[in-house]
Amino acid sequence: MAYQGIIETYRPLLNIPEGMRAISMLEGNTPLIPVPKIADRLGGGFDLRVKFEGLNPTGSFKDRGMTVAVSEAAHRGAKTVICASTGNTAASAAAYAARAGMRAIVIIPAGKVAAGKLAGAIAYGAQVIQIDGSFDDALSLVVAISNKHPIALVNSLNPFRLEGQKSAAFELCETLGSAPDWLALPVGNAGNITAYWMGFKQYHEKKKTVLPQILGVQAAGAAPLVLGHPVEHPETIATAIRIGKPARGEEAVTAASESHGRIIAASDEEILAAQKLLASSGIWVEPASAAGLSGLIKEVDSGSLNLSGKKVVIVCTGHGLKDPDIITAQFTKPQVVKSELAELEKVILHD
Amino acid sequence: MAYQGIIETYRPLLNIPEGMRAISMLEGNTPLIPVPKIADRLGGGFDLRVKFEGLNPTGSFKDRGMTVAVSEAAHRGAKTVICASTGNTAASAAAYAARAGMRAIVIIPAGKVAAGKLAGAIAYGAQVIQIDGSFDDALSLVVAISNKHPIALVNSLNPFRLEGQKSAAFELCETLGSAPDWLALPVGNAGNITAYWMGFKQYHEKKKTVLPQILGVQAAGAAPLVLGHPVEHPETIATAIRIGKPARGEEAVTAASESHGRIIAASDEEILAAQKLLASSGIWVEPASAAGLSGLIKEVDSGSLNLSGKKVVIVCTGHGLKDPDIITAQFTKPQVVKSELAELEKVILHD
Ligand SMILES: Cc1ncc(COP(=O)(O)O)c(C=O)c1O
Ligand SMILES: Cc1ncc(COP(=O)(O)O)c(C=O)c1O
Repeated sequence: MAYQGIIETYRPLLNIPEGMRAISMLEGNTPLIPVPKIADRLGGGFDLRVKFEGLNPTGSFKDRGMTVAVSEAAHRGAKTVICASTGNTAASAAAYAARAGMRAIVIIPAGKVAAGKLAGAIAYGAQVIQIDGSFDDALSLVVAISNKHPIALVNSLNPFRLEGQKSAAFELCETLGSAPDWLALPVGNAGNITAYWMGFKQYHEKKKTVLPQILGVQAAGAAPLVLGHPVEHPETIATAIRIGKPARGEEAVTAASESHGRIIAASDEEILAAQKLLASSGIWVEPASAAGLSGLIKEVDSGSLNLSGKKVVIVCTGHGLKDPDIITAQFTKPQVVKSELAELEKVILHD
Repeated sequence: MAYQGIIETYRPLLNIPEGMRAISMLEGNTPLIPVPKIADRLGGGFDLRVKFEGLNPTGSFKDRGMTVAVSEAAHRGAKTVICASTGNTAASAAAYAARAGMRAIVIIPAGKVAAGKLAGAIAYGAQVIQIDGSFDDALSLVVAISNKHPIALVNSLNPFRLEGQKSAAFELCETLGSAPDWLALPVGNAGNITAYWMGFKQYHEKKKTVLPQILGVQAAGAAPLVLGHPVEHPETIATAIRIGKPARGEEAVTAASESHGRIIAASDEEILAAQKLLASSGIWVEPASAAGLSGLIKEVDSGSLNLSGKKVVIVCTGHGLKDPDIITAQFTKPQVVKSELAELEKVILHD
């Protein structure tokens, strides 16, 4: 049968209201792309693949959780949803709310959201409000608003977001025939790492698949879970994970330790280098989404991680198209050449 | 078994060299998303779905053809690929060439390519050359170059592009259990409409599925196939189909007439209205990709098309993220609000 989206595919495994109608755009079912050239760069002798979550309908993994959160909000009669966002949650909430015929309000930190994400939230018809504060400020505000008014919160504090996001773990187990040995992924507000761990544990109980070790990666300028305390002024080019007080920080630390993994930090330079390496295998992701690979490279290069013979998955959470400016800012504008064969030959053949 | 990409999935149906190794990113297998609200806008009583091709790895349908064209080029030992592009072909060629370890040269009309596409081509490591001419000029140049030098042309003049692109027709037949009754899609250089028709005919011969009627839609300012002659200075906000001399124009006209369909033109306003309508169902596409729906609306509203009881598919060729500027240009920048509950309540509750 044709693929039906996350809710219909995994309904028996999701803790959701009985009879809840699915607001779906057939999210999920994303490809797990082999990247043998990158495995070779890391010493070779193991199976490395990218779970490319940028190929969800709004361009990021957020759609997995949003289909469930918005469906549940609609199920109990909510007319409006709200979220704080570094951009991807905003676009996803806006899209699913539009589909459900609901109003979406998204609060973002002014000047700190990548171009493609902002345009998306607007295109899908959300009310976009910028605040003169950080993501963490925005999150506090939307929690307060949703406690006081009949407006449904769809940040990953909402447990239904995690119910949807854990589906990515199920898909990995099904595609690989078991869980991977290692899973590397970026950590921001820490909902995703928490959801993956929930999903792997649930699948393990049900189908006796192995459990993976999890490598969570924060940006060095926004690494509260590595430092062990909140970061007042988080800074990183990976704007999606520019978060100083992760809402699900404790659960993330538990996921890392229970899985015999860890949470580490990578610098912006390391993240951009990983972004470039992925693109050279044909996979262009936004900076935050390259954090998983940057962490893997760090661990392998320092000798802390031996991947020989293992199955390893990098989760790439958002498409490169979400943040085109980070690319154009690094390059000089392509030259303009006269529209003549001889001129073109000069440029092509002597380069 | 896990999805293997277009070449491995459809190898027996593709006219490709025996033993050709697949350079793949698991392109294809895109969702066919029901859009009942849009069907209602068109009078209701029929099944309307969007084939969302923006969820291919580089964000457009071009990946279907590029996996085959680049694999074939690699198979015969090519070291460099070249293409002219309004942007999407460039990004796709760059990605697959990078994956194959080949050099990619892409020629684009200066100032006429959307931001996300240009950034993509650069990110994947292509040599991007802007010319002071149109897409049609660029295409003439790359044909000349590839005739004179050992450089593989990967525009849709390359028959292997069509071999890959026809896979979308196979997918539709498999998901729906038959071909749709009507298929609406944008027409630029006319490779895609040609490939769909090839695919439907081939599937029809093999499996006795019905044949669809095809509605090709050009932008009114770039409608050579509607006017019956080339357009010297094509103009449209739908930059992807800003093409005045379609390379496969004759085949497109044949596809339309053989299928008992037609090729029509839609204005930029009609295209933008269709883009908005799609986004209000959660599907954000680039302007060109909304052309199919804009044409369908025109035909239904004018009484030329009765869809009652039919299965209708709109092909949305590229993601909205490819062209964020078209959105931001239409909207005023979201307001910046003080990071305080009372301030936020004012904006939210009194709007
Ligand atoms: C692209 C991307 N990657 C990673 C993350 C981090 O996910 P989480 O906040 O669940 O840790 C986000 C969150 O916004 C994101 O947008
Ligand atoms: C988004 C998009 N839609 C439609 C088209 C038209 O396809 P074709 O040139 O095969 O007619 C293109 C071609 O560049 C495109 O990029």
